[in-house]
Amino acid sequence: MDEKERENRGLALDRRTFLRSGAAVGALAAGAGAARAEGEPDPLITEVQYWANGWGDGVDASPYGLPIEFESDVIRRNVPWLTADVISSINFTPIHALDGTITPTGCAFERHHSGAIELKKEDYRLMINGLVDQPLVFTYEDLERFPRVNRTFFLECAANSGMEWAGAQLNGVQFTQGMIHNMQYSGIPLRTLLEEAGLSNIGDIKDKWVYVEGADASSNGRSIPLEKALDDCLVAIKANGEALRKEHGYPVRLCVPGWEGNMWVKWLRRIEVTDQPVQSREETSKYTDTLADGTSRKWTWVMDAKSVVTSPSPQMPITHGKGPLVITGLAWSGRGAITQVDVSLDGGKSWKVARLAEPGVAMAMSRFYLEIDWQGEEMFLQSRAHDDTGYVQPTKTQLRAIRGENSVYHNNAIQTWWIKSNGEAENVEVS
Amino acid sequence: MDEKERENRGLALDRRTFLRSGAAVGALAAGAGAARAEGEPDPLITEVQYWANGWGDGVDASPYGLPIEFESDVIRRNVPWLTADVISSINFTPIHALDGTITPTGCAFERHHSGAIELKKEDYRLMINGLVDQPLVFTYEDLERFPRVNRTFFLECAANSGMEWAGAQLNGVQFTQGMIHNMQYSGIPLRTLLEEAGLSNIGDIKDKWVYVEGADASSNGRSIPLEKALDDCLVAIKANGEALRKEHGYPVRLCVPGWEGNMWVKWLRRIEVTDQPVQSREETSKYTDTLADGTSRKWTWVMDAKSVVTSPSPQMPITHGKGPLVITGLAWSGRGAITQVDVSLDGGKSWKVARLAEPGVAMAMSRFYLEIDWQGEEMFLQSRAHDDTGYVQPTKTQLRAIRGENSVYHNNAIQTWWIKSNGEAENVEVS
Repeated sequence: MDEKERENRGLALDRRTFLRSGAAVGALAAGAGAARAEGEPDPLITEVQYWANGWGDGVDASPYGLPIEFESDVIRRNVPWLTADVISSINFTPIHALDGTITPTGCAFERHHSGAIELKKEDYRLMINGLVDQPLVFTYEDLERFPRVNRTFFLECAANSGMEWAGAQLNGVQFTQGMIHNMQYSGIPLRTLLEEAGLSNIGDIKDKWVYVEGADASSNGRSIPLEKALDDCLVAIKANGEALRKEHGYPVRLCVPGWEGNMWVKWLRRIEVTDQPVQSREETSKYTDTLADGTSRKWTWVMDAKSVVTSPSPQMPITHGKGPLVITGLAWSGRGAITQVDVSLDGGKSWKVARLAEPGVAMAMSRFYLEIDWQGEEMFLQSRAHDDTGYVQPTKTQLRAIRGENSVYHNNAIQTWWIKSNGEAENVEVS
Repeated sequence: MDEKERENRGLALDRRTFLRSGAAVGALAAGAGAARAEGEPDPLITEVQYWANGWGDGVDASPYGLPIEFESDVIRRNVPWLTADVISSINFTPIHALDGTITPTGCAFERHHSGAIELKKEDYRLMINGLVDQPLVFTYEDLERFPRVNRTFFLECAANSGMEWAGAQLNGVQFTQGMIHNMQYSGIPLRTLLEEAGLSNIGDIKDKWVYVEGADASSNGRSIPLEKALDDCLVAIKANGEALRKEHGYPVRLCVPGWEGNMWVKWLRRIEVTDQPVQSREETSKYTDTLADGTSRKWTWVMDAKSVVTSPSPQMPITHGKGPLVITGLAWSGRGAITQVDVSLDGGKSWKVARLAEPGVAMAMSRFYLEIDWQGEEMFLQSRAHDDTGYVQPTKTQLRAIRGENSVYHNNAIQTWWIKSNGEAENVEVS
């Protein structure tokens, strides 16, 4: 097939021809164009770039953009003793004070391992290599030329609710369940980019992997089964309509729908197709669940169905006295759509079916409401999510029976708030 | 029915009993608790409050909260000659640079008539009066106790594209079609609040109205048919999950789905049920379309189906040269859901069906994409929306044939961008 014939075959083939021609795509050995000292040569793309040569900034250096000064309490918060310093911090979403399902990006949870780097679009490069027909390097502008889609996904850190394994600890839903957000992403299906590089010699995709890494100093490399990569992963260039925030991976991050947040590599710089998992730090010594007998669970990627009452809660006490009370919260599942959320006022003895604000969407957050007439009685408030696989969110007792108490990750147990007669709320466990 | 019986009848009735008892709701004559000079008595709720006693602030006094410093060009913009001063300005959404359908609140279009006021939740009151069984005044906290819903709506100013009636004028989609945004709202159906005040003596709802006004100095009063008010209007307390921004009516605005933005009263302070339209300034001398013969169209509330290509466009030239090009844009209809968007490359001679990113949602924005192979040819780029009533977006020629050229409002005509061989784009008309 000659060039002319290819052109006649239309867009898909022609795009490939175009991108391979190198007209807009840097060759593998091309420098990434990073800013540098005068006279210093460009580093090769395989060498350390200037933005990865140290720590990024703290996150809340970028102003959030408050709706109005009176809302200055609705901000991300850190728990100082939980992480060492600004270059490895957790900034929890104020889910107690939000409504709906979209998380405003400026107050959306963020976790990084070596700071939030500042990487210009002009300097951005994405390499695809390994078991592909032709290794490729894309610029940001190249990515904008591929067909893109819009999808809304939740992102939950595997360590969300991690401190609660050992008992009720942190007195606020922002801290107990706030390592989560939900955004509308615009991006290119990862499948499209992998097919651009070519998978014709890959053999059975079921035993192949992609190793994805970021452009920050930590690189945060993770192995993902190729089957998942080709299914629904997204190379995102926008979140909630606008550019990703610096701390969410500007200009490009990976979305791995329903799977633990650590795999959603930020400042995405490289995707290597491999025939085995890389067994990186982030997927062995970290992000691994230790069971009661000291062995570890293997490949715990999916975030199981979970829900939590966001109001009332310790940061959102009942201040209006007796009478009508709106109970509300969030539910999500990494296996599919939320189909039902139950709410208990008596610590799980009896349940009422809550109202879902909108029909559940796979891998996205749902909002639930339950309106009650509160006459000042003490309550042990809980919520319980169901997803469309039939999975039901477990109690802490059920979860500990299987997983022991050595875990840090994947705590999707039912949360209890003790609502006192004066309207105050406290994080407790009920047996 | 005694108090005990009422309690036994459950929540709805009980809430009404509660709210009417005055335990949390200010009586009609109660002061709104506004800040004031020491010793000065509270103004009555029917008197001028301090925040309405002058001009509010300019809008961009509140920082937007940029995703990262490199995106400082993606901001709202004013057209200085279009409006007199900061207290009556228009701040256009940078739709050329956004993707997806959610508009980030910090860069969402805003129009006000007497500044963006700062009204604290503690000072907020909403009065419902007129032809209701019992006039009521709600605090913000009262509103939070009613069952609420989540809905995504576009809001378009009636004057969007207004300057284009006279020909192609403003060279950027931010200015020609940027008086629009699309947010996920959480709020209380207006029907719920009207029923709380009681409509048992109202008679035929088809000839009744609500007159809605804001707490700012302009008050921006508008008459809305009671039928619409009871159908889908929302008293919104959150947008995109968080508090409304100051310039979008913090803490409470009205949503009038699919209808012109001027009716979406901000800082909502009063809803009066009436037996005729009030014929206020905003619905007579303003927001009225003058026809060729000098007469005016009556009651032009609905925003008809419209679409526009956001990229490429004058602010988003093609910079990457020949080859794969993603054409993208937005479509919306005040009558229902978008079902199809067509794109023309040749000024309307031929059309291709674009790809909708997600199925259309009634009264909400849709995103469309069309991928082409651009070989540097000149294009006259247009888009054309269809909604689920069968309505098709008209050409400028078709619209002018019916509406003349005296209008300022309700220009939903097809927009043309002349894409030149060098990739630059210009606002033009084709006959």
